[in-house]
Amino acid sequence: MRKKNATVWEVRFKNKTSSLIQDVGSSIEVDKRLYKEDIRGSIAHTNMLGKQKIISQKRSKKIIMGLKKINKEIQANKFNFKKKYEDIHLNIERRLFEIIGEDAGYMHIARSRNDQIVTDFKMWLRNSTNHIVKNLNILNKTIIRKAEQNIKTVMPGFTHLKNAQPVLFSHYLLAYVEMFKRDKKRFSNNLTNLSENPLGVAALVGTSYKIDRNFTTKKLGFVKPTENSIDTVSDRDFALDFLSSTAICSLHISRVAEELIIWTSNGFNLIKLSDKVLTGSSIMPQKKNPDPLEILRGKSGKSFGNLSSMLTILKGLPLSYFKDLQDDKEIVFNSYDNLNNSINILVEVINNLKPNKDRMLELAKEGFTTATDFADYLVQQKDMSFRKAYKLSAKLVNYAERRKKRLDQLTLNEIKMIKSDLEDEVLKVLDVRNSVENKISYAGTSTKNVRRMIIKNKKEIK
Amino acid sequence: MRKKNATVWEVRFKNKTSSLIQDVGSSIEVDKRLYKEDIRGSIAHTNMLGKQKIISQKRSKKIIMGLKKINKEIQANKFNFKKKYEDIHLNIERRLFEIIGEDAGYMHIARSRNDQIVTDFKMWLRNSTNHIVKNLNILNKTIIRKAEQNIKTVMPGFTHLKNAQPVLFSHYLLAYVEMFKRDKKRFSNNLTNLSENPLGVAALVGTSYKIDRNFTTKKLGFVKPTENSIDTVSDRDFALDFLSSTAICSLHISRVAEELIIWTSNGFNLIKLSDKVLTGSSIMPQKKNPDPLEILRGKSGKSFGNLSSMLTILKGLPLSYFKDLQDDKEIVFNSYDNLNNSINILVEVINNLKPNKDRMLELAKEGFTTATDFADYLVQQKDMSFRKAYKLSAKLVNYAERRKKRLDQLTLNEIKMIKSDLEDEVLKVLDVRNSVENKISYAGTSTKNVRRMIIKNKKEIK
Amino acid sequence: MRKKNATVWEVRFKNKTSSLIQDVGSSIEVDKRLYKEDIRGSIAHTNMLGKQKIISQKRSKKIIMGLKKINKEIQANKFNFKKKYEDIHLNIERRLFEIIGEDAGYMHIARSRNDQIVTDFKMWLRNSTNHIVKNLNILNKTIIRKAEQNIKTVMPGFTHLKNAQPVLFSHYLLAYVEMFKRDKKRFSNNLTNLSENPLGVAALVGTSYKIDRNFTTKKLGFVKPTENSIDTVSDRDFALDFLSSTAICSLHISRVAEELIIWTSNGFNLIKLSDKVLTGSSIMPQKKNPDPLEILRGKSGKSFGNLSSMLTILKGLPLSYFKDLQDDKEIVFNSYDNLNNSINILVEVINNLKPNKDRMLELAKEGFTTATDFADYLVQQKDMSFRKAYKLSAKLVNYAERRKKRLDQLTLNEIKMIKSDLEDEVLKVLDVRNSVENKISYAGTSTKNVRRMIIKNKKEIK
Amino acid sequence: MRKKNATVWEVRFKNKTSSLIQDVGSSIEVDKRLYKEDIRGSIAHTNMLGKQKIISQKRSKKIIMGLKKINKEIQANKFNFKKKYEDIHLNIERRLFEIIGEDAGYMHIARSRNDQIVTDFKMWLRNSTNHIVKNLNILNKTIIRKAEQNIKTVMPGFTHLKNAQPVLFSHYLLAYVEMFKRDKKRFSNNLTNLSENPLGVAALVGTSYKIDRNFTTKKLGFVKPTENSIDTVSDRDFALDFLSSTAICSLHISRVAEELIIWTSNGFNLIKLSDKVLTGSSIMPQKKNPDPLEILRGKSGKSFGNLSSMLTILKGLPLSYFKDLQDDKEIVFNSYDNLNNSINILVEVINNLKPNKDRMLELAKEGFTTATDFADYLVQQKDMSFRKAYKLSAKLVNYAERRKKRLDQLTLNEIKMIKSDLEDEVLKVLDVRNSVENKISYAGTSTKNVRRMIIKNKKEIK
Repeated sequence: MRKKNATVWEVRFKNKTSSLIQDVGSSIEVDKRLYKEDIRGSIAHTNMLGKQKIISQKRSKKIIMGLKKINKEIQANKFNFKKKYEDIHLNIERRLFEIIGEDAGYMHIARSRNDQIVTDFKMWLRNSTNHIVKNLNILNKTIIRKAEQNIKTVMPGFTHLKNAQPVLFSHYLLAYVEMFKRDKKRFSNNLTNLSENPLGVAALVGTSYKIDRNFTTKKLGFVKPTENSIDTVSDRDFALDFLSSTAICSLHISRVAEELIIWTSNGFNLIKLSDKVLTGSSIMPQKKNPDPLEILRGKSGKSFGNLSSMLTILKGLPLSYFKDLQDDKEIVFNSYDNLNNSINILVEVINNLKPNKDRMLELAKEGFTTATDFADYLVQQKDMSFRKAYKLSAKLVNYAERRKKRLDQLTLNEIKMIKSDLEDEVLKVLDVRNSVENKISYAGTSTKNVRRMIIKNKKEIK
Repeated sequence: MRKKNATVWEVRFKNKTSSLIQDVGSSIEVDKRLYKEDIRGSIAHTNMLGKQKIISQKRSKKIIMGLKKINKEIQANKFNFKKKYEDIHLNIERRLFEIIGEDAGYMHIARSRNDQIVTDFKMWLRNSTNHIVKNLNILNKTIIRKAEQNIKTVMPGFTHLKNAQPVLFSHYLLAYVEMFKRDKKRFSNNLTNLSENPLGVAALVGTSYKIDRNFTTKKLGFVKPTENSIDTVSDRDFALDFLSSTAICSLHISRVAEELIIWTSNGFNLIKLSDKVLTGSSIMPQKKNPDPLEILRGKSGKSFGNLSSMLTILKGLPLSYFKDLQDDKEIVFNSYDNLNNSINILVEVINNLKPNKDRMLELAKEGFTTATDFADYLVQQKDMSFRKAYKLSAKLVNYAERRKKRLDQLTLNEIKMIKSDLEDEVLKVLDVRNSVENKISYAGTSTKNVRRMIIKNKKEIK
Repeated sequence: MRKKNATVWEVRFKNKTSSLIQDVGSSIEVDKRLYKEDIRGSIAHTNMLGKQKIISQKRSKKIIMGLKKINKEIQANKFNFKKKYEDIHLNIERRLFEIIGEDAGYMHIARSRNDQIVTDFKMWLRNSTNHIVKNLNILNKTIIRKAEQNIKTVMPGFTHLKNAQPVLFSHYLLAYVEMFKRDKKRFSNNLTNLSENPLGVAALVGTSYKIDRNFTTKKLGFVKPTENSIDTVSDRDFALDFLSSTAICSLHISRVAEELIIWTSNGFNLIKLSDKVLTGSSIMPQKKNPDPLEILRGKSGKSFGNLSSMLTILKGLPLSYFKDLQDDKEIVFNSYDNLNNSINILVEVINNLKPNKDRMLELAKEGFTTATDFADYLVQQKDMSFRKAYKLSAKLVNYAERRKKRLDQLTLNEIKMIKSDLEDEVLKVLDVRNSVENKISYAGTSTKNVRRMIIKNKKEIK
Repeated sequence: MRKKNATVWEVRFKNKTSSLIQDVGSSIEVDKRLYKEDIRGSIAHTNMLGKQKIISQKRSKKIIMGLKKINKEIQANKFNFKKKYEDIHLNIERRLFEIIGEDAGYMHIARSRNDQIVTDFKMWLRNSTNHIVKNLNILNKTIIRKAEQNIKTVMPGFTHLKNAQPVLFSHYLLAYVEMFKRDKKRFSNNLTNLSENPLGVAALVGTSYKIDRNFTTKKLGFVKPTENSIDTVSDRDFALDFLSSTAICSLHISRVAEELIIWTSNGFNLIKLSDKVLTGSSIMPQKKNPDPLEILRGKSGKSFGNLSSMLTILKGLPLSYFKDLQDDKEIVFNSYDNLNNSINILVEVINNLKPNKDRMLELAKEGFTTATDFADYLVQQKDMSFRKAYKLSAKLVNYAERRKKRLDQLTLNEIKMIKSDLEDEVLKVLDVRNSVENKISYAGTSTKNVRRMIIKNKKEIK
């Protein structure tokens, strides 16, 4: 008779595990999130054992029936997870014994928790990666829509946060699209590592049973079985790939968030956010704060830290399974939830954002932003070297600065003091909208280019 | 009439916060852990408001009565925390309105959540830091006890994990004590930053009410009030100090864990752990694995990652409060729980560990570990330069290696082939126990020294 | 007349940059490593300017001639890099003025250092990534060769560093091959991001000159031009991709190093390293330390830190160029050099490593490593459930342990005490070599499988 | 006869170290920076050997004479460091043999490179820590001077980067002083760990020579000898302490830098930097960029990464010396240089910074920054609860916003629409300067308080 509450290894152990150790060693609070994958894996495994005649068809069916029942219990929130059974695998096995009796003891043939957990985790990550990819598409469509709605809005472009050259707001937004397209690509690349089926390598050396790994590979949606048993149970590259992709994506989000925070400040005042994405203060009655953006920015810290944690955990770890690896799931789940929330929040923010077009145009004229256009004009019209033209333009800027004028406020006579043979058309060169529309080089900020890129991106994203 | 479920800032906002934003923005699931500190702080604050006649004594008492009731409700697990009230402060204020009515509106005079949260957090950290310090003392006493019990056990000392020179097991254990003494010192140093009271700087500029910060300072166990209001609400140094101390302490634990894992391997087999601190395998019937030690080693990764997260979150953040800071508590709580668990586990492991004395002695003789003693002997007895003696000793080792002998298995005649004028007493030099007892220099591994250090440490730790 | 030592922007500035700022701001000591790429980029750019008639063919040729001269000067170590010209671009432009005079001023038309540096850096990284890929192939071939040479050597397989099940040394080595194959794949994936040509987006908005970005794309070995000018100068994903691939690869190396360090310890003594890859001690004459392996293990720390640094630098950075990005090159160069050295060292170590076959076999028999085989045998021969068989096997282990016997030292009669109907053939089940050869499941450790994988890997790696 | 170019351990080794290994294993390029400390340590050690009669006085003097000569050679840049002698210790020993002959062989009695390097490194760090402390004082004095010069300048205080409440620029600057005071304290605390003398613990177990560790302790400026030989050669806490203090200090600098970058943007335009601390663009003639500030911000990334590297390197490392530790010096030197440069740059920037007082005042009036003052006024004058007053103030803000007026532009009649019994004096409440001067609570922003803090800080810093 099976003792109530016994662990799998009770026969071998003289003393019970100390309760502190049991408590900290248990991962069930975290890995119960994998119950679907675990049951799906066990069903496929049991199916295979039956098909290969390693166990009888009858037993196979009985076990699968029991597993399906457990699946329903968990879904219905009626399953009693217990710390003492350590993890999702042993909690389920234990319940299976209760439901179908001693036949449950045939399920763990030809496998170990070492291959089982990697199988569960890879399935979960495959699904979650696909979800992120889908969400990145939604984000990019949202940004593109906002760009389309404001295609001709001129704003200052910055380098070093100082006004540099005029740019279209829509062009700026499309820069974000590029970043998230790369993220999508990166996540998609990860699917290759996630397509190799670990199930069947057992503890670390494979098994002497005549198992069919191709069968479970197909059943579980993998592409091929892994090729080295020791590597299979030691490998957490797929977690690292996910964490580094997540870190880079959350980095991109932090950069967007930082810009929007700066733009919504009273100093810049370039955009307006709807109250839906703002919060107030407990003491200052006037306040409307872009809290969600700050959360986005801050979460990158968690994301980087999680990557760093996982790298450190694996650093210098000899091969094959160690309990150090237990934390991989908590870390990955946390990074996934943060990223997923972050993408959703960013979509919400973009949808609730309006450019202050007047202020954008006004600020675009500050900072002598068409000085480069003036230099380029001299090169193009006067066959001057760029370095000479640059110097003349610098002189013009110095002059305007002294007079406290913007470049578009200078008269032709004033400009001619810098170079006497200039004509009326030079005034147009100093205009910010004209400057924008002149940037027709591929990837440049002219409306024509932006329109082209919007079409191209829409096609690519579908 | 106050609307049910209204936020503090409802008047100012046209739209309700989107539910997604509210959900992610809410920190109540994390910061409810601070309820005691929050209520204690509010009571002190309200007391002070009454004492300073900023509010009436009657109101002051009513508010405090309400707060004490809330404290009991939370302790009795009868408080209904709501995400929509965002955090611990507003959840409590909201409940206070329900209990005492509109007088609750007087509590938030002359303060902001910005100073309130820092006050709560510092009080919590002060307490937690003291707890860690206490636990480190327990750990060190446990190690010292183990050292005392095995004071004369000889084992190999390693450099590069290869046998280097014989050493006492007790001396090895005392090396751990040194590490944890430094940790204790480091945590104690942190108490200085934690002794400055933030309460009363309000949002970021102080307040025009005639508050008495010295009063709350005393009531809340601080030493003095902070000195710059902007810095006070921006500063998270106290969290960083805690996280870096925790990182270093968990690093020490990871080093101890690694050693014990190696020592308990079949290859080394230097120690034996009781079943209480071991776990089994789901597939391999014979297995007894040092899971707890692996958890200790792995947790250092989380701890480093947490420090890294917090640094990243704060990096490049302008002064004063930002929502990015919200994550500081989740991070610190996680690092605290991990460290606290880790120390407790390590105590349990040390208590359940036995040296395999025979194997220790045997292995100490491998690897020509007394070659340095031989060189030193030549220097001391034959006035030889160390470099010359070193070479002769290297030759002796080469000889022994070729003959597949240990140094203590060489005959006097064999040794004399290296240097002909050596006498019988040289054989003693090659003995590992003799080698150990000769290391009488301060901090060296002789029993005499170890005994002295045990006494010294016991006195210091109390 | 151009003033000697003037900066490009001298006209605009009233004061000279302070010497401290100039000193720290200068990146020439680092980015001079990009001189080849910079000159190659400038030649392509100038070629294009000529072809597009933006400058005359004559000027174009003159500039290119000057650039080629500079290339030779630098190669011949005759170029005088100056801190005051800040970086590789301005050092070269400055020298070009000296060589060809004012025509040099035409080279910087339609470009900025912002697009120039990204172009240089991407070309360098493309080349370096290819180099790493090549080196990983060499490493894998080296490992495979070692596996072939020792194909039938039995050793203990470990979980939790404790003996688990017997395994082939060659199978263990092939686990490393899997890790490095994934690394190779990861680096190869990075080439996509590196294939987009940044040149021609100028400072951040594109340019009004009629440039041909497809021309420079082709000339510089890129696949297509980048698509958004702002993103192009802001993006450092390609650096992050390289750093995260490097971190993961160096992590793998650290795991291999750790194992080899443990295996070469006196406690394990499973392998022997040649003196070529060992170093000695200044005090202990007998010592032979695996320093190179420790360097490999330690360097992973640098590699992770570099990734962490770059992520932090970019965190929360608004778009377009900032000087914060200056450190990207120093960081990437450091990670590249470390990884490249590490791979080379590991090749050297593998080549200079020999298994101690006798000790391997001996240790494989310790720790009851065939207990799982015994359980599997009961399942297969006696139609027992695995959980029941597991318990019987645990009992057998307990018995052997009490008698201080290995499993292969038990007599049939002793085994029959556990289960009375067992026959002679059970003795074979407890043999470690037999155990190994039975693991014929795909990816398992049987010689047959290992041989198959060696052939497969050789084909794939070429 | 000593062979030319021989390593110390040549007798024991059959093969020469491979040149690749030698190359990577050599640390001389990095640790030659410790030459002074190394020679000082060797002199003290040799002195002690003589005093204790372990070597003759004559030999002791000869060795010291040789060491002093070497010191001069290195200072005069005439010393030929060689990679093949691996590190600073063996390079110097080697040269000593050349200068004084075989007596050099007596210097390494009773010590190892393991204790030697820790001694050198601790001395260097002690000195460097003191240097940082001194520099932080200079920085704080510079900030205080700037605060004094602009004591009454009103600017907007921010939370969430949005205008919150008016504040004095001088008060803002003093917030920085608080941060750097904490840094100073943190570095000073580190000196305790740095005061324990490692010299004399030899390789890892102490020595059998009758050495006097108190003598070298005194000679080398330490306070007491370390107490456990194994811990002494394993411990790198002093490096971690330095790196974490450096990380936190560079974090503070990054926050200051970020603010100044935002303030110098065209959008905010709150401060003006002199050309001395700005740089230009290669393409945009008008540009003046705050490069130095961006370097300060970015360097925090390197600093965090370095801390992370060192933690990772030490993670899970068994006790006593491993070559992994070699990188500690490169990492610490890099963090030290960066921090030192950063402090110097920040001093230069602060000295070259001017507030745009008009713009500061103007922006302080935007964003309804006195709304809290209005609420506080209602509480103080009308005995209203803060929550009620908060709501009335919110209504006033809503009204002003609709009318596109600032709060100080409202008429009494308009204000009375919110609450009819208000009088003229309420207009003063809405004035930003009045708001500032009312913040008389301890640590608040009133001029009175700021003046007090300037005096207090000056006294403390000296």
